[in-house]
Amino acid sequence: MSETYQPRAVSQAPYAAAQGGDDAGSPFNDYFVEQDGVRFAGTHLIVDLWGAKRLDDMAFIENVLRDCVDASGATLLHIHLHHFTENNGVSGVAVLAESHISIHSWPEHGYAAMDVFMCGETEPHRAVEVLRAAFRPERIEIGEHRRGAMA
Amino acid sequence: MSETYQPRAVSQAPYAAAQGGDDAGSPFNDYFVEQDGVRFAGTHLIVDLWGAKRLDDMAFIENVLRDCVDASGATLLHIHLHHFTENNGVSGVAVLAESHISIHSWPEHGYAAMDVFMCGETEPHRAVEVLRAAFRPERIEIGEHRRGAMA
Repeated sequence: MSETYQPRAVSQAPYAAAQGGDDAGSPFNDYFVEQDGVRFAGTHLIVDLWGAKRLDDMAFIENVLRDCVDASGATLLHIHLHHFTENNGVSGVAVLAESHISIHSWPEHGYAAMDVFMCGETEPHRAVEVLRAAFRPERIEIGEHRRGAMA
Repeated sequence: MSETYQPRAVSQAPYAAAQGGDDAGSPFNDYFVEQDGVRFAGTHLIVDLWGAKRLDDMAFIENVLRDCVDASGATLLHIHLHHFTENNGVSGVAVLAESHISIHSWPEHGYAAMDVFMCGETEPHRAVEVLRAAFRPERIEIGEHRRGAMA
């Protein structure tokens, strides 16, 4: 089945090594990033999946979250998932050294509300590709916030 | 000190009792809400605090998150906080029956990136008042998303 998503199969590019270091003068890495002359804390993607599959499968969802972390070059600190008995929906949060990824799913509507919020030298958009491959949504809406922009 | 924030001192109004039930025909409570003719999963507040205090105090922050949950009429399922040694920043997530509240703080910048995402018959804006009283930010920016709008 070529369409089947294989958790843990995402390769991780050595992204950090390809990034320029612009914090050389700082006493520590505060995970702020700089793009287009704007210094900000991180990128927060608001991801809504519609017509998505396997939103009731907690073990699968946990693997997908872990794959998102790996694909983005982030560091997992803590993961917690909760399965609701009423509708088999799942709420899950992965706390990262670089912020968090969260999911809240309504399998009966094929809907999941997800957040991918990452600071530092990570690639949050790679997580979206993992989500697309894993949940195969008919439609995906992505909003993007630069959190903590310092001008 | 009248300015001192007293954790756990927030009174909780019996909000649920004051809400009309519009899910009477549903087989279960799926936590979707309806406002202005739009049915949606929940309200997601993107809250940025600047010039905020006590962003390095993990025990305080945990109490504040718990107060946010109480004030909003939400139900806490799980709470996890992490203290970073490099800058004393704190990352914390409260997983709720109604979604989540999160914080990522940079005490050295007086900055915290917070999310208050709540579904069902809750009052997420009450959490913002708790945050304002607790962290006494000089400036607060609030973005609002209606997640999962079904038209």
